[in-house]
Amino acid sequence: MRIAIDAMGGDHAPSQIVLGALQAAKEWPDTHLLLVGDTQQIEAAMGGNKPSNVEIIHTDDVIGPDDEPVRAVRRKKGASMVVAGNLVREGKAAAMLSAGNTGALMTTGLLIVGRIEGIERPALAPMLPTMDDVGMLALDLGANMDAKPEHLLQYAIMGSIYRTKVHGMSNPRVGLLNVGTEAMKGNELTKAAFELLQNAPINFIGNVESRDVLLRNCDVLICDGFAGNIMLKSMEGTATVVMRSVRDALTSSLLTKIAALLVKPKLQSLRAKMDYKEHGAGPLLGVNGLVLKCHGSSNDVAVKNAVGKARIAIQNKLVESIATEFSRK
Amino acid sequence: MRIAIDAMGGDHAPSQIVLGALQAAKEWPDTHLLLVGDTQQIEAAMGGNKPSNVEIIHTDDVIGPDDEPVRAVRRKKGASMVVAGNLVREGKAAAMLSAGNTGALMTTGLLIVGRIEGIERPALAPMLPTMDDVGMLALDLGANMDAKPEHLLQYAIMGSIYRTKVHGMSNPRVGLLNVGTEAMKGNELTKAAFELLQNAPINFIGNVESRDVLLRNCDVLICDGFAGNIMLKSMEGTATVVMRSVRDALTSSLLTKIAALLVKPKLQSLRAKMDYKEHGAGPLLGVNGLVLKCHGSSNDVAVKNAVGKARIAIQNKLVESIATEFSRK
Repeated sequence: MRIAIDAMGGDHAPSQIVLGALQAAKEWPDTHLLLVGDTQQIEAAMGGNKPSNVEIIHTDDVIGPDDEPVRAVRRKKGASMVVAGNLVREGKAAAMLSAGNTGALMTTGLLIVGRIEGIERPALAPMLPTMDDVGMLALDLGANMDAKPEHLLQYAIMGSIYRTKVHGMSNPRVGLLNVGTEAMKGNELTKAAFELLQNAPINFIGNVESRDVLLRNCDVLICDGFAGNIMLKSMEGTATVVMRSVRDALTSSLLTKIAALLVKPKLQSLRAKMDYKEHGAGPLLGVNGLVLKCHGSSNDVAVKNAVGKARIAIQNKLVESIATEFSRK
Repeated sequence: MRIAIDAMGGDHAPSQIVLGALQAAKEWPDTHLLLVGDTQQIEAAMGGNKPSNVEIIHTDDVIGPDDEPVRAVRRKKGASMVVAGNLVREGKAAAMLSAGNTGALMTTGLLIVGRIEGIERPALAPMLPTMDDVGMLALDLGANMDAKPEHLLQYAIMGSIYRTKVHGMSNPRVGLLNVGTEAMKGNELTKAAFELLQNAPINFIGNVESRDVLLRNCDVLICDGFAGNIMLKSMEGTATVVMRSVRDALTSSLLTKIAALLVKPKLQSLRAKMDYKEHGAGPLLGVNGLVLKCHGSSNDVAVKNAVGKARIAIQNKLVESIATEFSRK
């Protein structure tokens, strides 16, 4: 299988991206990696190590973090991200991954790779951390701020297929993010979506509350991009502030400082658990090829893991399964 | 001044409500308190102590926590909450407070007390905890799940007046809850509201993110009821889970247990700080009289504090100020 990697996107590009690709190439010799970017920089990052299953696709241009997404994708035809998207579109790669500009990657998915027939809005679906370390797939988290009930229905079906195909879950529980668990709670959007979800070919468990997300009250969380983002940033901010206050309390006397040293590993693992940035690549679901968004601060391990995730999704025919489901409608 | 108190609403009614009223009556002899509810139960809770500035208004009926709000307010004309609302409507009390059914209280405000002319949607405006203990007024938090841009504008003006009149702030900073701080961020609602807020007679500081709410990134937070509720429950849930994990880490060995004892007061105060239920009564802004919602679990101190808050709002002519502002439009 062939996977395209935007070597130029991300805070630590190209070096960490290239190093991650080298590790992936070594671990999975059956996988052909297409490193898209500036040949000279990529070769420098490789340091003379060029496995036979790694190929460089040279590009001159790059989409930067501050580029306006739609404009950049339309104008910078030779940017690494856009070229990687075209490899997927043309069937020369089954997947692409990038740690670059999120908006531009969503635009690349939409305009270059293209939507699956029947899908109205592709959705960004990152994994949220949960205390049991299993994680929760949440969508949409950022591709579309506003959503219609039908979009939420499509997110739910795509999310269920993803957890089944990529995570091997047999009957993932789909929850609708809402202000209460009772059936008729919520705003106009969630009330209408609730009706649709009840009749969908998924394991819909009803409304779920954001207060229990960390306890994994469902496996696929459905929300519009605005509410999902508010939720995520509330969780992040609260975790940060509380952890900081605990740290301050623990450094108030000598004895508590010693105790703080003893519990440091546990608190650090808690902090890492709460850091949703650490939880790897999230797919852009609904586009006609696998597009994975890696976090901007991705290091080599994150890139290697993203390649691993792409392999599973390709092997288990994620995109084909979504396309089949929606071609039935 | 005269303040009506729904003696029958709340988890600890009537005993804690009555005890709180007695404390308030003693502290503020100039305030006449109308305790609305079952005479026999109220007198029993008083235990023979009946100050001259406390009057009982007998009612036979009560709206329960599970009653459907609109139906209950319409049908139970003799319920303590509805009777208290009528006292305000008829000018026999300047304010009412209740720890009862939130939905029913909002309905009482809307249907019995009535809207201020020019106000489209009254909004529930509780105080959110902040790390500096100053707190943030957030609205709407529950009265209306969906909002139009014009409603958010009205919330902003009312919230500014509240913080000025009741909290003595000279130029409260109004922030719009959003997914980023840049001007054009958000969904259709926040983009349109942003434009309106920019031209409003308030100190609008722009979009604010939920991650910084605990750090008091503004004094008046504007949001629709759905997004606000998602935010609040995300913060609550995260604080609970993180604090529990910290407690588990601290009880893992003898030394850490000793340290845990030392930091216990600090952690408890942190926990109390994060508990938004503790932060007292929130007004229903936009109705033609002061309506204060006390938390369902309110004890005597919470009730007494709510009376104190009502006194300040009445003295500083909160409702009249809002009415004057909107009569100019």
